[in-house]
Amino acid sequence: MLGGVWFVEKHTHSLLFYYKVKKIIYSGKTKYQKVDILDIEPFGKTLFLDDKIQSAQIDEYIYHEALVHVAMFSHPNPKKVLIMGGGEGATLREVLKHSSVKEAVMVDIDEELVNLCKEYMPEWNNGAFEDSRSRIYYTDARRFVEETNNVYDVIISDLTEPIESGPSVKLFTKEFYSVLYNKLSNDGIFVAQAGSADPLYPNFVASLYKTLKTIFPIVKVYWTFMFSFQLPWSFIIAGKTIDPENVKLTSIFERINQINRENFKFYYPNMHFAMFSIPNYLKSALEEKGIVIKDDVPFIWRA
Amino acid sequence: MLGGVWFVEKHTHSLLFYYKVKKIIYSGKTKYQKVDILDIEPFGKTLFLDDKIQSAQIDEYIYHEALVHVAMFSHPNPKKVLIMGGGEGATLREVLKHSSVKEAVMVDIDEELVNLCKEYMPEWNNGAFEDSRSRIYYTDARRFVEETNNVYDVIISDLTEPIESGPSVKLFTKEFYSVLYNKLSNDGIFVAQAGSADPLYPNFVASLYKTLKTIFPIVKVYWTFMFSFQLPWSFIIAGKTIDPENVKLTSIFERINQINRENFKFYYPNMHFAMFSIPNYLKSALEEKGIVIKDDVPFIWRA
Amino acid sequence: MLGGVWFVEKHTHSLLFYYKVKKIIYSGKTKYQKVDILDIEPFGKTLFLDDKIQSAQIDEYIYHEALVHVAMFSHPNPKKVLIMGGGEGATLREVLKHSSVKEAVMVDIDEELVNLCKEYMPEWNNGAFEDSRSRIYYTDARRFVEETNNVYDVIISDLTEPIESGPSVKLFTKEFYSVLYNKLSNDGIFVAQAGSADPLYPNFVASLYKTLKTIFPIVKVYWTFMFSFQLPWSFIIAGKTIDPENVKLTSIFERINQINRENFKFYYPNMHFAMFSIPNYLKSALEEKGIVIKDDVPFIWRA
Amino acid sequence: MLGGVWFVEKHTHSLLFYYKVKKIIYSGKTKYQKVDILDIEPFGKTLFLDDKIQSAQIDEYIYHEALVHVAMFSHPNPKKVLIMGGGEGATLREVLKHSSVKEAVMVDIDEELVNLCKEYMPEWNNGAFEDSRSRIYYTDARRFVEETNNVYDVIISDLTEPIESGPSVKLFTKEFYSVLYNKLSNDGIFVAQAGSADPLYPNFVASLYKTLKTIFPIVKVYWTFMFSFQLPWSFIIAGKTIDPENVKLTSIFERINQINRENFKFYYPNMHFAMFSIPNYLKSALEEKGIVIKDDVPFIWRA
Repeated sequence: MLGGVWFVEKHTHSLLFYYKVKKIIYSGKTKYQKVDILDIEPFGKTLFLDDKIQSAQIDEYIYHEALVHVAMFSHPNPKKVLIMGGGEGATLREVLKHSSVKEAVMVDIDEELVNLCKEYMPEWNNGAFEDSRSRIYYTDARRFVEETNNVYDVIISDLTEPIESGPSVKLFTKEFYSVLYNKLSNDGIFVAQAGSADPLYPNFVASLYKTLKTIFPIVKVYWTFMFSFQLPWSFIIAGKTIDPENVKLTSIFERINQINRENFKFYYPNMHFAMFSIPNYLKSALEEKGIVIKDDVPFIWRA
Repeated sequence: MLGGVWFVEKHTHSLLFYYKVKKIIYSGKTKYQKVDILDIEPFGKTLFLDDKIQSAQIDEYIYHEALVHVAMFSHPNPKKVLIMGGGEGATLREVLKHSSVKEAVMVDIDEELVNLCKEYMPEWNNGAFEDSRSRIYYTDARRFVEETNNVYDVIISDLTEPIESGPSVKLFTKEFYSVLYNKLSNDGIFVAQAGSADPLYPNFVASLYKTLKTIFPIVKVYWTFMFSFQLPWSFIIAGKTIDPENVKLTSIFERINQINRENFKFYYPNMHFAMFSIPNYLKSALEEKGIVIKDDVPFIWRA
Repeated sequence: MLGGVWFVEKHTHSLLFYYKVKKIIYSGKTKYQKVDILDIEPFGKTLFLDDKIQSAQIDEYIYHEALVHVAMFSHPNPKKVLIMGGGEGATLREVLKHSSVKEAVMVDIDEELVNLCKEYMPEWNNGAFEDSRSRIYYTDARRFVEETNNVYDVIISDLTEPIESGPSVKLFTKEFYSVLYNKLSNDGIFVAQAGSADPLYPNFVASLYKTLKTIFPIVKVYWTFMFSFQLPWSFIIAGKTIDPENVKLTSIFERINQINRENFKFYYPNMHFAMFSIPNYLKSALEEKGIVIKDDVPFIWRA
Repeated sequence: MLGGVWFVEKHTHSLLFYYKVKKIIYSGKTKYQKVDILDIEPFGKTLFLDDKIQSAQIDEYIYHEALVHVAMFSHPNPKKVLIMGGGEGATLREVLKHSSVKEAVMVDIDEELVNLCKEYMPEWNNGAFEDSRSRIYYTDARRFVEETNNVYDVIISDLTEPIESGPSVKLFTKEFYSVLYNKLSNDGIFVAQAGSADPLYPNFVASLYKTLKTIFPIVKVYWTFMFSFQLPWSFIIAGKTIDPENVKLTSIFERINQINRENFKFYYPNMHFAMFSIPNYLKSALEEKGIVIKDDVPFIWRA
């Protein structure tokens, strides 16, 4: 059973994951990244970018619900939402579950990738791109935020980690976040996927924490576990006035029931709060590790 | 950097983990199992039994604190504690942190393994074997429980998964649990490590849940994430009268401060409750999957 | 560069080969075997049957020329040739280079495989299937040999190793070879690919040697090296009257020049003889190892 | 059986070998290189330098006999022999089998490695270091050759491939070989291990060929197969007046019988000549590939 085709993911230089491949659905390169869409035995259909797992059929909903709904249910009435990245369309799919949303804007630099996801991974967007409330722009998210005259209730950062000369290096800096802050409404909320929450390499989430603290009055980190990443995963959320950890449990119950609880496979009201109980090693890392990321002091991800 | 010595763990037939090895500290076999104690780059000193990771220096405290303290802080005054398995001595170490404990009994069938752990992994027991409250017996835990005349406040099952013809097959059955129930005090609590909490193979925890429900009035599952297992991990806890999810937060605060909060690296009062917010897929599995395990219908772990 | 898709070949339980995959050209199953046709980085287009490498673009010509031409140049005038197996069509291609050949019969049980090779690996047969001298039968080679009324000058066994319940188990037995002997002309030659010539597992070639010695007066083993197999490879050749090691060098020169030396990429007259200089460990193995293979004492390949 | 400790050899960026490890005998670093002496399942005790296999118990004799005896039996009466490299002591062992030898000088830069080999791999030298004819110098072979006033009948280059900033970069250049030429007696012979003879990367042997042709009138390449390297392996031999391919077969028979044929496990008179029948792709590579290696145009091995 060992014989045959495997995909090797170099998690770090000393930890490798091998996935048995059932089928190569697509394998190629866009202008920005190497793309592999594979059917792998343990996780089903799975997207790899630059040989790193991005999302897998078995549990992409955990990642996307955790990323989207903490912010969406913390905001009392999110009407305008901006997504940076999110090429698979699943973040958009989750945003659109909220009937309060009038406009959901998604900005992804990699049009080819979005088209590959549409063609080969339609389960991810599940029709989201056709929703009349959706607007898709293929451009650099930083430029988009700098140039927009709109103000958003919720901004979601669903970006790949900033690898050397990758497209997302300038999307995590203090300078960018201070512009972004001004494109949020007065009770606006910003949330970002913040990478692995493991004890070995917490520098990325710690740096995001340090950086956002220079801009936002309220910054919190929450976590969950991503089976297909083989890692605990962190998210960082920042509010101008709202503290997502102090939202009323009863109001979340009310709103989720209005929408229909069945639409949510991972997120539920008590989970909203449980995710903020992060392990002590991560609390310490937020205080003791990381840097304030700046345009001229970027954070570069290295394994 | 790829070249060199690696340890391969066959997580399942379609998912392999490769760890870079710095040093083989010990490699051999006891009467019961293959034992490898390695210094591996990602996790430091690590114990493998039958080629499966058991505990690693980087985060063994998460597993052991999660296993021990939910039960110990749920019980109002645990004096007598029984540990089944737990060869590394770290479960014992955690139990002994509670000053209420007068007697901590550990029963492990594999004396050679315990001695190897004492010699090569002293950080795990941290002196626990020398504590005057400790009693160690090298015998089959089932026989011990059946024959003992003692009654325990807390019983902790820190056993390896039941593999074919392995020593723990008869330690998860309804028959055994009904004997064990009678060796618990009136407000006694039983807790067990219950294996992976991933969405692919939840059958073990689901079967434990079904089995314990036939014996105990209160059975709850909680989870956390084990970085070195690359998995979310489940624990199952059962009470005769106490519901560990409904203990008072303030009373945990009080007791943990009496002991000294600094002694706990992972467990803290809010985490106690957060761990009970398990994902929906696991809730469903508890209802829909698994079997009632019996002496003549054993559960055998297969990857 | 480590990240990405690899094919794993379990050479033995303690020796694995990993090939970087550029493209999966075909992956599926026939009635008889698992078939993977891959473009792998080190070797180009490559055929795997049941996860074992069969032939690779970079050096299939070495295998096929070594298999075919020693026999063909040893026989003074081979007109009728029978190939058992040889699904890729490359053995047929080599046979047809000899202008003396009037009829080249190929018998392969796996029609689906032959069609896959025709479609995806046309470089291997290079038009051989369309040659007017070719006859292809999709049937069991043993039955074909037993039932044919024809007599052949050269018979070539290009079969996969006899794995448990595989189709070739009955094609290496004393009983079969004694039938085959009678379907050879008086100066007929039989040649077979005889598996790895490594020092660890020489049992297959040794058993073929022992078995053929019970039938043929002249039996010789020769070898070469297959880069894409990562192994030295053995062939066994048997004559009724001709000793292939004692053919005249000058007559081979003459004939190869008549055909056109350029047509041969690996075989050349001095190589004909050099290949018979096998290493001493292999000479010893031929004497000391192996069994006489019989219908009721089959040889089964195990790694 | 897959689980456990493996050694990974990165043969090239697209071809990896995995060996099951039974025991790590020694693992460390000398001043010059990483050293691993392992007991691996397929090959027994095995030496790896910088994560590349060097010699394995199962077939080191093939490499060492092929390297040494072609030169030694080609020279009519080799009395003084110089070995460059050869830290394991097995090349020395083979040289000393010739009773004509009065003095065998071995020059290896890595004294620590030689001592590790003596301690952990005594089977390799088999007492050679204690032979009264042996002289061992721990210094740079180039300096030794430049400074020596002696003249040798046979010089043997048993050096690792020239990797970036490794110790052997200056030991394959035209400048060095022209000095070395003058330290050979009038009928002197130089032989070198010349790396893999595979069809993908024949540049090293081709460059050695081009380089030696500028110095020696007679330069020939021969090959054999190294099972534990999983490769065909090349050797290059150069004579001032003697052509090792045109030595008399009968004289080799005579001399080997004088010594005692039983002492030779791989080499035998016919094999001497068979090894010169190299494949055509290698012949072509010798003509078409490679460079003349010079001090300021070094050959650097890259995988």
